[in-house]
Amino acid sequence: MYYNIALIGFGGVNRALAHIISTDPEKFYCEMGFNLRIVAVSDVFLGSVYTPEGIDLALLAALPLAQGACATLPNGKTTAENEDIIKNSNADIVVEATVTDSITGQPAISHCRWALSTGKHVSTTNKGPLAFAEQELMALSLKNNVGFEYEGVVMSGTPVLRFADKLLKGSGINKFTGIVNGTANYVLGLVEQGYSFVDAITAAQRQGYAEADPSADIEGKDVMLKVIVLANRLWNTNLTQKTVQCQGISDLTETMVRQAVTEGCHWKLLGKASKQDDGSIVASVSPEKLSVEHPLAAISGAVNAITFTSDMLGDVTVSGPGAGRIETAYAILSDIIAIHQRRES
Amino acid sequence: MYYNIALIGFGGVNRALAHIISTDPEKFYCEMGFNLRIVAVSDVFLGSVYTPEGIDLALLAALPLAQGACATLPNGKTTAENEDIIKNSNADIVVEATVTDSITGQPAISHCRWALSTGKHVSTTNKGPLAFAEQELMALSLKNNVGFEYEGVVMSGTPVLRFADKLLKGSGINKFTGIVNGTANYVLGLVEQGYSFVDAITAAQRQGYAEADPSADIEGKDVMLKVIVLANRLWNTNLTQKTVQCQGISDLTETMVRQAVTEGCHWKLLGKASKQDDGSIVASVSPEKLSVEHPLAAISGAVNAITFTSDMLGDVTVSGPGAGRIETAYAILSDIIAIHQRRES
Repeated sequence: MYYNIALIGFGGVNRALAHIISTDPEKFYCEMGFNLRIVAVSDVFLGSVYTPEGIDLALLAALPLAQGACATLPNGKTTAENEDIIKNSNADIVVEATVTDSITGQPAISHCRWALSTGKHVSTTNKGPLAFAEQELMALSLKNNVGFEYEGVVMSGTPVLRFADKLLKGSGINKFTGIVNGTANYVLGLVEQGYSFVDAITAAQRQGYAEADPSADIEGKDVMLKVIVLANRLWNTNLTQKTVQCQGISDLTETMVRQAVTEGCHWKLLGKASKQDDGSIVASVSPEKLSVEHPLAAISGAVNAITFTSDMLGDVTVSGPGAGRIETAYAILSDIIAIHQRRES
Repeated sequence: MYYNIALIGFGGVNRALAHIISTDPEKFYCEMGFNLRIVAVSDVFLGSVYTPEGIDLALLAALPLAQGACATLPNGKTTAENEDIIKNSNADIVVEATVTDSITGQPAISHCRWALSTGKHVSTTNKGPLAFAEQELMALSLKNNVGFEYEGVVMSGTPVLRFADKLLKGSGINKFTGIVNGTANYVLGLVEQGYSFVDAITAAQRQGYAEADPSADIEGKDVMLKVIVLANRLWNTNLTQKTVQCQGISDLTETMVRQAVTEGCHWKLLGKASKQDDGSIVASVSPEKLSVEHPLAAISGAVNAITFTSDMLGDVTVSGPGAGRIETAYAILSDIIAIHQRRES
């Protein structure tokens, strides 16, 4: 069996996904129990292509990074056709990996809405739809009995959402604490080593960790959105950006960061949420000075980690990559596995 | 809906399970989607009781720790009736948590065999059946279409087996490295702090970590069996005790352990397995001196951790409790959740 998929946005992540699919289809099928057929690609820069019987993956892999390049493919166009492809293609699954406006969550929200409304499963790596329209999109997915999956939103391919949701089910999770922004963590590590904050941020940008505008990473907003996504998923609550206290690392000084090391401590930007006695959820983002005994103190560089505290297990921590093209493409693959398992059941 | 369960062995773990089930049945049902009814208990010391419509959990909770105490319960007997209960009771699921002979794997193997042969699901916390009869028992479970689950065998309730098997599916795991014996790790920590090995082992026994005969922990055999269980599950291979190189911590000296700390390192007893280029699996157990940058160097005391290395994600580490009554009881609960999901699908 196979699923038809439409890739909305064809940047590094969806390219990596196409690469994974095409590398060894036989092995892929053996391991997964299904194959994937890319029937459509639509990208604001590259244009679009829709081939109901499947796009030639060798051609797709060789697609130059040039404006309107999709027009060089059979059936290709120089323009993006997101709405038409999402609504009217024969895709079973829409993979949403576009660049999102952090103020409105668009256009990812519309993409998810169109897909779910027309009975297509969605895998997205975008925080936007979760931060701004989670309840609406969840309701749509339930109503139309399709999957709405977003493992890549928190810690990219490290499967923390499903870990907490599926594998710690019934353990009584009452708290989580995480380092979920690799840029901030990488910057703090460099400052410990003697970099100024400014130089550390520049270095993070050179490494490809930080955006051209690094403020969402540095001011904690990226962490806040991830905390909201995880808390809402875990406790079926409705945290919003207004209800989470958020402080980034810009109030820290270089002296504070280096002084901590001499005390055997490390400053870390932590996202936290916990269940109160009355059942309500309190969440926050702030830098904290951790002693080296703390399980998250050793999480360095661009690595991410989350500690889940539960009634039955105490602390359980998952650490792993929090970014990366292949890593995030694996998150999409794990979403598709979940969609497949759901369909099988 | 509910499942009838038979508890074979009624030590700390199965008592904790009974406690979990009885604490808040309504909440339990809401979260799980099923209830559990304990229909039988059989224990070599306490005796046995079989009540097809469910044993009164309040009476079970109050059962004194006295030889033959089960006889004080309605339908109770002073003798264990493992075989009869496993084969002939109305249990849907047999929970096997007896004390196993480390040379033969018995009586746990027979318990699992009887249960699976008569169409009952099995959850076991025992390494014995996996180490000595995995292939036979797996074949039986497939033949009779029942679950054979054993999450508690590695890292107790920390769900590493399902994490690797389900959540990292398709990521291309090619290696794992773990600290999976809390006793050895706790002992090494105390020796770092100045204890002699002898005193450290005595302290571990007092804490309830080490057995009266601690040799399986200290000599690495416990780690070896866990490595075999995990490797066989991950790669569908057939490692046996004969094919795994095994060295414990008894060749380390107190000087070596303390010297390492002055160098910024820690000795850890590591279990490892990796996939070779020809597809074969090589596994080993041995102490290694890790620098503090190593993700497992900070795993201290009785905490356990395993790092999975995969093609797509690089290193992903799960750390958490590796022992404990409630923690292991949670492993059984997670097995039952898996059995339920399997049945639902």
